[in-house]
Amino acid sequence: MRDAEIIAVGSELLTPERVDTNSLYLTDELNAVGIEVRRKLVVGDDCVLLAAAVRQALGQVGIVILTGGLGPTLDDVTREAVAEALGRSLVFRQDLLDGLTERFARLNRKMADNNRRQTFLIEGAEPLPNPRGTAPGQWLDVDGRIVMLLPGPPHELKAMFANECRPRLSARLPAQVIRTRFFRVACMGESDLDQLIAPVYKNCTNPATTILAGAGDIQIHLRARGATEQEAEDLLNVVGPAIEQLLGERIYSRNGAALEAVVGELLRARRATLSVAESCTGGLLGERVTSVAGSSDYFLGGFLVYTDRMKTELLGVDPELLVKHTSVSEDAARAMAAGARSRTGSTHAISITGEAGPESASGAPVGTVVIGWAGPDTEPVAERFMLFGGREGIRARAAQWALDYLRRRIQ
Amino acid sequence: MRDAEIIAVGSELLTPERVDTNSLYLTDELNAVGIEVRRKLVVGDDCVLLAAAVRQALGQVGIVILTGGLGPTLDDVTREAVAEALGRSLVFRQDLLDGLTERFARLNRKMADNNRRQTFLIEGAEPLPNPRGTAPGQWLDVDGRIVMLLPGPPHELKAMFANECRPRLSARLPAQVIRTRFFRVACMGESDLDQLIAPVYKNCTNPATTILAGAGDIQIHLRARGATEQEAEDLLNVVGPAIEQLLGERIYSRNGAALEAVVGELLRARRATLSVAESCTGGLLGERVTSVAGSSDYFLGGFLVYTDRMKTELLGVDPELLVKHTSVSEDAARAMAAGARSRTGSTHAISITGEAGPESASGAPVGTVVIGWAGPDTEPVAERFMLFGGREGIRARAAQWALDYLRRRIQ
Repeated sequence: MRDAEIIAVGSELLTPERVDTNSLYLTDELNAVGIEVRRKLVVGDDCVLLAAAVRQALGQVGIVILTGGLGPTLDDVTREAVAEALGRSLVFRQDLLDGLTERFARLNRKMADNNRRQTFLIEGAEPLPNPRGTAPGQWLDVDGRIVMLLPGPPHELKAMFANECRPRLSARLPAQVIRTRFFRVACMGESDLDQLIAPVYKNCTNPATTILAGAGDIQIHLRARGATEQEAEDLLNVVGPAIEQLLGERIYSRNGAALEAVVGELLRARRATLSVAESCTGGLLGERVTSVAGSSDYFLGGFLVYTDRMKTELLGVDPELLVKHTSVSEDAARAMAAGARSRTGSTHAISITGEAGPESASGAPVGTVVIGWAGPDTEPVAERFMLFGGREGIRARAAQWALDYLRRRIQ
Repeated sequence: MRDAEIIAVGSELLTPERVDTNSLYLTDELNAVGIEVRRKLVVGDDCVLLAAAVRQALGQVGIVILTGGLGPTLDDVTREAVAEALGRSLVFRQDLLDGLTERFARLNRKMADNNRRQTFLIEGAEPLPNPRGTAPGQWLDVDGRIVMLLPGPPHELKAMFANECRPRLSARLPAQVIRTRFFRVACMGESDLDQLIAPVYKNCTNPATTILAGAGDIQIHLRARGATEQEAEDLLNVVGPAIEQLLGERIYSRNGAALEAVVGELLRARRATLSVAESCTGGLLGERVTSVAGSSDYFLGGFLVYTDRMKTELLGVDPELLVKHTSVSEDAARAMAAGARSRTGSTHAISITGEAGPESASGAPVGTVVIGWAGPDTEPVAERFMLFGGREGIRARAAQWALDYLRRRIQ
């Protein structure tokens, strides 16, 4: 019961284009309760091979987790394969059919006949509700070993694991207290950050330190295990405060909240509103701001100004300014932010203009991004950054840098 | 000899941070010579588990490829594990030691004692030279099945596979040609699509059909193998045209291009321009349109109108209309599109208004999305959709539905 195998099911995961990433999430979750992953397997939609794999796994580990292959179509074979491996039958469940029928009715959609395949459970299995999809999961106890069947789509899998599997696993494992600490840092390179904080964590295994880097966004996880809460907290207090001191206000979140949510809370707390003016990001900044539920409390709207003419017509940027300084300039960014603020009446306005490539229209090198801000009681300001990462990476970083720029202006 | 298992060896590949990507390169190479990958396994640096895995693999496929675990340290166990699985011994090879000694001398480095581990071959194995590292590969013929031991670092693995393994495989396999066909379909449920086309492909293994579903975006891959190009094309012509006929104009791409790129090409070909007006998607539509390099040829800009006041002030939507019909209405969507079109002077304008949740502001149920379009020579139109998937899924689908709505209007 301390070791697991993860089996990802799906022929698409055996193509040159796709990797299984669900197992990364599951490994993190399993490690957190002290379970080690011994093997990870990918098998196609092949009932015979999959049944053999399940038998092999049960011969080697205490926990077998299957992801995917629970859909309605004929190539979804996980239910059949596990039933075959265990020598059990598949049992129709009226309650599952009722739930599925109701789900389709609620969404005003007609249920296809093949969805009935999703209402069969392996004999002895407990169904795991799936609020985000049609495929219920299954939990089996096989002579003290555990087999889980989980859906493939990551958002369905994660919700189901967190709500259903994590508590069931914890209940079966001896008490171990895990305490975590978490920092998110924006707009720093991974190697710069690591060079700064490695002396603090590198020789320490408890808490374990994990650093995950995205585009201008680094997550630092500390995870301590102890027999008691106090013991785990004491261990965290060796490393955590030292990292906090080194990173200072570059830390924007201590609870995992994304940067757009942190900025949103700052605005809400001040009863302030926001508008945006985007050129090279084309809507990405607005999309991130409004990805937060309840963002209508502070977000008013914005302008996508992809051409010079739009910057002038929609935001009132002086055309002579654009000729003199180009659209990728501090002057343009300040004028864009000021225009968005005055036309929406928002407390704050943030602007992005830059060259995401592949070619440069303004003459500024690809990767140049200028962020502008307009707010109360002071003149608009702007700052120039050199970002990297190809068109997609530059755009993603530009939105991230803009959010962090706004955070620092508000705070 | 037509199917393979890839076994990646290394405990670091069982952490929450790392995935095996060597297998993607290998899959691509194997598929190109007509070999299918049946299973992909990741095992840690554990001799017992690895030996068991090799035995299992040899019971199921004709080709077993191991990557990694050929280094000089004690936790590199691939040589020992494969020898154990095959019941063969490890044989010291003076020629390998000479080569290694010379390599270190050339690089002016001292050879560590443990590098001697890399001079042992499994009985009967052919060594595969590694110009980029110290670990030679090994090639074994086991009663007509093949076992390859390849190094883990990608640049070593790729050079060795290309120089040593590819020619050896080709020499053993009859000539085979692979031809593919590809369709992308928007705004259809996976089970609806499958029910429609399953009768065409379900009993056919050549071409093999793979269906990949995202949020309102389905990819259908057909892959046929034949002795000649003509034979593979003939096989594709049994299934491909039938699927095309069933899906008709719902197919938006036959070359893998994303919907935003397809719409962009339609606009460019007609020298037409586009603007957007987004409410619940908050910039996501603009972001997708501008994610295409060169989109400044046709995208002018747009409006993020997250509140009723913004819809009125930025787009000129009649406030009485919003009171009478709410902002989530066909009337509002049409007025938004018309406002965006007239204020930017674009050929086409597309609007999105809806309820992405978690709560509804307009009274319309969460998931309601209305898409509007304004274009030349005709009155603005709008259509109401019921989308699902939580806040994130509804927003993603709304942008997808809007792009497809635009595609159909332009075509």
